[in-house]
Amino acid sequence: MSNHKKRGMEFEYYLNKTNDFYRLTNKALIYKKPTPIQIVSVDYSKQNHVINKAFFSIPSTTDYNGIYRGKYIDFEAKQTNSLIGLSISQIHKHQLLHLLNVYNHGGISFLIIYFKKLGEIYIIFSNKIKELIDTNNVKVISLSHLKKYGHKIRLGISPYIDYLEVIDEIYQKYF
Amino acid sequence: MSNHKKRGMEFEYYLNKTNDFYRLTNKALIYKKPTPIQIVSVDYSKQNHVINKAFFSIPSTTDYNGIYRGKYIDFEAKQTNSLIGLSISQIHKHQLLHLLNVYNHGGISFLIIYFKKLGEIYIIFSNKIKELIDTNNVKVISLSHLKKYGHKIRLGISPYIDYLEVIDEIYQKYF
Repeated sequence: MSNHKKRGMEFEYYLNKTNDFYRLTNKALIYKKPTPIQIVSVDYSKQNHVINKAFFSIPSTTDYNGIYRGKYIDFEAKQTNSLIGLSISQIHKHQLLHLLNVYNHGGISFLIIYFKKLGEIYIIFSNKIKELIDTNNVKVISLSHLKKYGHKIRLGISPYIDYLEVIDEIYQKYF
Repeated sequence: MSNHKKRGMEFEYYLNKTNDFYRLTNKALIYKKPTPIQIVSVDYSKQNHVINKAFFSIPSTTDYNGIYRGKYIDFEAKQTNSLIGLSISQIHKHQLLHLLNVYNHGGISFLIIYFKKLGEIYIIFSNKIKELIDTNNVKVISLSHLKKYGHKIRLGISPYIDYLEVIDEIYQKYF
């Protein structure tokens, strides 16, 4: 795998394990979507058809979605080596738009950001991201933004990244 | 594409166009998930990384999901050349289980079945499928089952396959 791919792997692994835990305990059904690819050529001569040429596509939505407490939940996971924050440019425009659309349709939508060098994970809801961009013309979602407008995730073992704890906390207030 | 792939293409095309219409009119956000594949080998030497070996994986969930009226919606699309019905064996077991799980979590989940030779499309909700299997040991979801326990979709132009019309009709009763 390329460096680009490798970087996100560890975080993805623990997120997937967290979602497995939520499913096994019947708390929520949340899945990572398959990586979108554009298939160019397939060899159908073998019993297991072999894709022998394909490209990675730009995702039109986000990485994760599912159902929690009957509601639609949708989020994108990002990882950064920065100690300052996550650049807005690291999020595809249509992904940001998708998260806002979900919010407008009454769903739960957010970014979950892993600060690799700090070992800290934060959530910020899409309406808060919109506020930061629209009113403050923010180019970077900084740690201080996240501490003020976001929510720090408690890390553990079962599950590893208990992001639904934050959803529960604010559920009464927002949903 | 193989015959297996070709068969579903037309139905998939009109479903995707229907979902585009729902998105453009801001009625719902429903997407087809990317085809799950298992990547074996990638050439990173080119600027656009080329996947040069991959296999189709068995999907762990369904083809379509999204949000409608704030609720989670999830369904699998099937097509048949039969005039009798859809064999249960044509649905992966974990897909059926997934649809039932969604129902148990308070989501809207169903099969949408296209009878190619009749030009008719039906919806059947997952709880009804479970009833048919559990109480009647049904092996085939027949046209008469669909007429009794399912809902026929009105076909049109904008959108082509207005399945949310059925959801609206029964929304008050079930959700």
